[in-house]
Amino acid sequence: MSNPSAAIIIIGNEILSGRTQDVNVQFIATRLAFVGVKLQEVRVVPDIPQRIIGTVNELRAAYDMVFTTGGIGPTHDDITSECIAAAFGVPWEAHEPSMKVLRDYLGPRMNAAQARMATLPRGATPIRNDVSIAPGFTIGNVHVMAGVPRIMQAMFLALEADLPRGTPIEMRAVYGMGVMEGNIAAGLEAIQERFQDADLGSYPFQRDGRWGVAIVAKGTDLARLDAAIAEATVMIEAQGIAPIQGEPS
Amino acid sequence: MSNPSAAIIIIGNEILSGRTQDVNVQFIATRLAFVGVKLQEVRVVPDIPQRIIGTVNELRAAYDMVFTTGGIGPTHDDITSECIAAAFGVPWEAHEPSMKVLRDYLGPRMNAAQARMATLPRGATPIRNDVSIAPGFTIGNVHVMAGVPRIMQAMFLALEADLPRGTPIEMRAVYGMGVMEGNIAAGLEAIQERFQDADLGSYPFQRDGRWGVAIVAKGTDLARLDAAIAEATVMIEAQGIAPIQGEPS
Repeated sequence: MSNPSAAIIIIGNEILSGRTQDVNVQFIATRLAFVGVKLQEVRVVPDIPQRIIGTVNELRAAYDMVFTTGGIGPTHDDITSECIAAAFGVPWEAHEPSMKVLRDYLGPRMNAAQARMATLPRGATPIRNDVSIAPGFTIGNVHVMAGVPRIMQAMFLALEADLPRGTPIEMRAVYGMGVMEGNIAAGLEAIQERFQDADLGSYPFQRDGRWGVAIVAKGTDLARLDAAIAEATVMIEAQGIAPIQGEPS
Repeated sequence: MSNPSAAIIIIGNEILSGRTQDVNVQFIATRLAFVGVKLQEVRVVPDIPQRIIGTVNELRAAYDMVFTTGGIGPTHDDITSECIAAAFGVPWEAHEPSMKVLRDYLGPRMNAAQARMATLPRGATPIRNDVSIAPGFTIGNVHVMAGVPRIMQAMFLALEADLPRGTPIEMRAVYGMGVMEGNIAAGLEAIQERFQDADLGSYPFQRDGRWGVAIVAKGTDLARLDAAIAEATVMIEAQGIAPIQGEPS
């Protein structure tokens, strides 16, 4: 089974200004690996219509699926929905079932800004969301989700079962505290050559003031990942360092 | 004074796999706002040469400056430096002063993988880094930094004083717990129309199980931001809700 491809578009002045730490990418990336979808690209773009429209059209043509987060609320800076309509070249119009849900929920308090939330690109299907009335939707291969992490997560999990999927992408790792990357580079490259179906990475990190290196193997064949990590473990031992399986404490 | 523009390229399989939570964007974004540089785009791309080369060339033409993070160590998956050379169409060659520093530091232990770290695109200038021997560098308007946050931060701070800069981009905010975005959307849009030099955003959040909304004004004229937030404060009070200045506890 091959792995479908995906991209994420974060529509977010608040990320570009540094005000907000994005946490949506890691959630989506982790879940996509779980269902065997390969995340190939992430873009963060500002709340500017032509930037959103251009990015959506570029990425929906390049990847099997696109996830957007942010910009679907009722305020003036929430412009994602009409930009998606423009990207697909379809009218942006009242979605009657969503309008009814909003009307039932808000009653006579419903105003024009709230009605705007039930305005969707023609042909869009709402995404179920048990957390709020934020109007996520799917159109073509583009899934439009909220920016608030808790709402985004509910939307993603509602979508997940119906996504095209592939063989789950697994990871295995081994850690060596005090390993110098330069001393294992040749050995690691040799392992990578023997395990071309495993994607090997080397990542330095600091823990309790000491430097360590994580060797990570990623791929769809767990037995091969385990074998590659077993070789990396021997390589770390050959440095006179005790390897640690799993997260070092 | 106008604001120069910038983009960030995160070169990182480990971000796309969900293994690592990026924290570099928020650090760089916050510092850039401080020196008046407008961050316009972020891309996360995998460790694939043509993806790195294409992205670097697209973004260095589009923005005043580009910052990359990741992929500058000595292992086989560290391919940023040669990709930057390819993007600029210059040779990738031994950088003698860096080679000397490495030789002095590593002595007879220095191997080919480590020497690779002192191999830079012709015309590159090393970035000072007091934390490690990771070889960051600047070429043209592209600043190539480490992916490990502590090292990246040291490199960015070493660069910061010499970056083209503009009027600092400031933020002011007011919060309303229990505010429904739909109820303030029209009022907020009217404020935005009166304050076109302030970029107003509305961001729902959850704190201690309750929903609130943050109204954020961003721009270079602090007096105008304060005036816009003062109007937003009155708008929240008109909802019968006590506004909170600064971060809600």
